[in-house]
Amino acid sequence: MHDLKMSTHTITCDMETGVDICDITDELNALVSGAGIVTGMAHVFVPGSTGAATTIEYEPGVVNDLKRAINELAAPGRLYDHELAWHDGNDHSHVQAALLGPSISIPIREARLALGDWQQTVVINHDNSPRTREISITLIGC
Amino acid sequence: MHDLKMSTHTITCDMETGVDICDITDELNALVSGAGIVTGMAHVFVPGSTGAATTIEYEPGVVNDLKRAINELAAPGRLYDHELAWHDGNDHSHVQAALLGPSISIPIREARLALGDWQQTVVINHDNSPRTREISITLIGC
Amino acid sequence: MHDLKMSTHTITCDMETGVDICDITDELNALVSGAGIVTGMAHVFVPGSTGAATTIEYEPGVVNDLKRAINELAAPGRLYDHELAWHDGNDHSHVQAALLGPSISIPIREARLALGDWQQTVVINHDNSPRTREISITLIGC
Repeated sequence: MHDLKMSTHTITCDMETGVDICDITDELNALVSGAGIVTGMAHVFVPGSTGAATTIEYEPGVVNDLKRAINELAAPGRLYDHELAWHDGNDHSHVQAALLGPSISIPIREARLALGDWQQTVVINHDNSPRTREISITLIGC
Repeated sequence: MHDLKMSTHTITCDMETGVDICDITDELNALVSGAGIVTGMAHVFVPGSTGAATTIEYEPGVVNDLKRAINELAAPGRLYDHELAWHDGNDHSHVQAALLGPSISIPIREARLALGDWQQTVVINHDNSPRTREISITLIGC
Repeated sequence: MHDLKMSTHTITCDMETGVDICDITDELNALVSGAGIVTGMAHVFVPGSTGAATTIEYEPGVVNDLKRAINELAAPGRLYDHELAWHDGNDHSHVQAALLGPSISIPIREARLALGDWQQTVVINHDNSPRTREISITLIGC
């Protein structure tokens, strides 16, 4: 049992038109290290309703496979009610992001993210235009 | 770095037969404000195995589009093993809720949820009957 | 408002070839009880890019229904880019795990997980071989 501290940060990601998947693991590990948190939890949140966060093995094959699966979950070019009302072309982006979710928490152990050997933390831009995403990071631990 | 505090709350949602999507953002911001937490994290959890939480742009078009996508993920009226055993008609509800997940955490900054401009926190009732959901809220911060 | 403490644990799950779904609720409740945390949050994380966590009503019908739905989200036997590069046969496993997500947080109230009456915490092995999973648990509360 330990008393807890918190520190908050932002990671900036220049993202391509969706589906774009960006690996933030190294940057997040650097924040953990800089904050001096040895044991705890790192919370990652993508502000905006067309972004998401998850983990993958970040290699080109999985990245392509996940993009394809996301575009099958909510395909671009179908008829969406959001499009009928707003005409901004990112109807599918909203649905994709809501299904994946904008939030993930990762344990911190021994001053690093306790990910699997082949597991990276990624954020996803589903939007139909490039977006500079300001990812919100909350580190809690001791 | 700051020492942390916690406060816990319940938000009651009267929800229609699923898929029903309810915006709890204003109520959650009021809890954050009342708790005096300026920086931290708000954890939202839907008790029950036919409910979920995520974020969306809460406008009627996206709400309809997300409902449709959820009903394609696990369609009502298909043959489910849960139905063969229990005959309670909410087979698809269980699968939908498990795929979306009951839990989301949102950063708190400047005494408010740090959501995007067009991003709301929502809870979802997937069940085949109206449900009054007692959403469990845990605020951690300082 | 309370001052917070943290305690960290591991739950070992011997899991069958995916999709395998394992109920960790009792073991997690025992950890909560042993840690003396009455109010707070339990964070569950599955290290590895072919594992996931969620909640379900853990009865054989729902377990089968969820397995089927997961295998429809990203079907084994399709053509995946990960397979073309690595030939390890778990292409679909990566996509399934990324869509579900490796992380879930559950509120703790009255020294127990505040789940619904028919809701269990589960971890999922999507991999194409049996895996002993070391689930990472972080309890935060007071």
